[in-house]
Amino acid sequence: MAYELYYWDGIQGRGEFVRLALEDAGADYVDVARGSEAKKQGTAAMMRILESRKDPYIPFAPPFLKDGDFIVSQTANILLYLGPKLGLAPADDKLRSFAHGLQLTIADMVVEAHDTHHPIASGLYYEDQKEAAKARSADFLRHRLPKFMSYFERVLDHNPAGNAHAVGSDTTYVDLSLFQLIEGLAYAFPHGMSTFNKRYPALAALRERVGGRPKIARYLDSNRRIPFNKEDIFRHYSELDQEIGH
Amino acid sequence: MAYELYYWDGIQGRGEFVRLALEDAGADYVDVARGSEAKKQGTAAMMRILESRKDPYIPFAPPFLKDGDFIVSQTANILLYLGPKLGLAPADDKLRSFAHGLQLTIADMVVEAHDTHHPIASGLYYEDQKEAAKARSADFLRHRLPKFMSYFERVLDHNPAGNAHAVGSDTTYVDLSLFQLIEGLAYAFPHGMSTFNKRYPALAALRERVGGRPKIARYLDSNRRIPFNKEDIFRHYSELDQEIGH
Repeated sequence: MAYELYYWDGIQGRGEFVRLALEDAGADYVDVARGSEAKKQGTAAMMRILESRKDPYIPFAPPFLKDGDFIVSQTANILLYLGPKLGLAPADDKLRSFAHGLQLTIADMVVEAHDTHHPIASGLYYEDQKEAAKARSADFLRHRLPKFMSYFERVLDHNPAGNAHAVGSDTTYVDLSLFQLIEGLAYAFPHGMSTFNKRYPALAALRERVGGRPKIARYLDSNRRIPFNKEDIFRHYSELDQEIGH
Repeated sequence: MAYELYYWDGIQGRGEFVRLALEDAGADYVDVARGSEAKKQGTAAMMRILESRKDPYIPFAPPFLKDGDFIVSQTANILLYLGPKLGLAPADDKLRSFAHGLQLTIADMVVEAHDTHHPIASGLYYEDQKEAAKARSADFLRHRLPKFMSYFERVLDHNPAGNAHAVGSDTTYVDLSLFQLIEGLAYAFPHGMSTFNKRYPALAALRERVGGRPKIARYLDSNRRIPFNKEDIFRHYSELDQEIGH
């Protein structure tokens, strides 16, 4: 039976980290909220689960995954579950734990990237928190981005199996997620990120490599890949796009 | 061999979610950064690991746990690892996954609680982001806190094994973490949280019950429990403490 991915229509968002794993593995899946009402899909189908009055194991928010009757919520938890099934997790338990820790660190950075444009409230317009957004973006680019990226670069460089992968000697969902994270930041901060490849060569090479994986490349070219846009987690506002720190 | 917990000295922070599980289980552990240099402990011992130039599997940030040579990072990942060993996780795999999803949702709320007083940058003083903090706190208390707490209350009420526990019929690390989350919010926002028990009766009862567990009660009374303070994730500033929404 096909996996069912539930995530907001119209944005890549956190759902994209799961999509990339499903796509790279060539897994059979339905992107439910993007489907048609006629097929009992669409956003309404997602909301029926989130707003269920009787079911016990309901997620707080999308993305979530249904595998048969079983629901898994939280992006990193979904990848923890899917990774081994899709051949995108290390075989070793300790490396799996390390991979999950990395994925949670990526998730932390995604929150911070989101908050660069919405530091006060997700429910308010960007225009109503623009001054705070400028201050938060400046700090993010000067301090936080280099701190996270130096760490991920270090993880690649210290991988005993070589710096082509974050964990072990094969591609895992962590590599795919690092790709998405860098893509998102490059969309949001093209000026700041213009020095990225020189500063973080192992990450830059990983990004190239993941983007060139045949199934990922086909996916990125397809209409299943939603373009980056200004409703999404990664957003481009030129006034927020500054130099990154060291 | 004793577990080694590594977390910043002087604050409860994210380390506290792990401490509560270790304490409730009566596990043998060392709180390394709070130990003495003479015993090769202290903050310097923690920094040696974080700044290691050669080890491959280094965490991004505290808390992390060492079990022998094995390092686990990220609070929720540590609890995922420790839960079964400490008898604080459900036996069933699907319930374990649900428990982990809940713990990640708690972690998300902890980030938001932190950002009420530091919406612009962790590296800046509160006083330098006070106006933004007021706006963020107002939104957090009006919208976010009720959204999260209604969800957790719903999880308790829909637990097929009864509303005394978040998952299954026994105490898990999720119950302990919900206790800590509510304690922290009550410290930070005593005025806003004054209506909490009436609004969220199942969570209020859970908080009472966890606080009354003999080992937890002894721990809370001991000097191992660091008092809440203004360097911590949960902070009390009267100007941020407003009514919570519905």
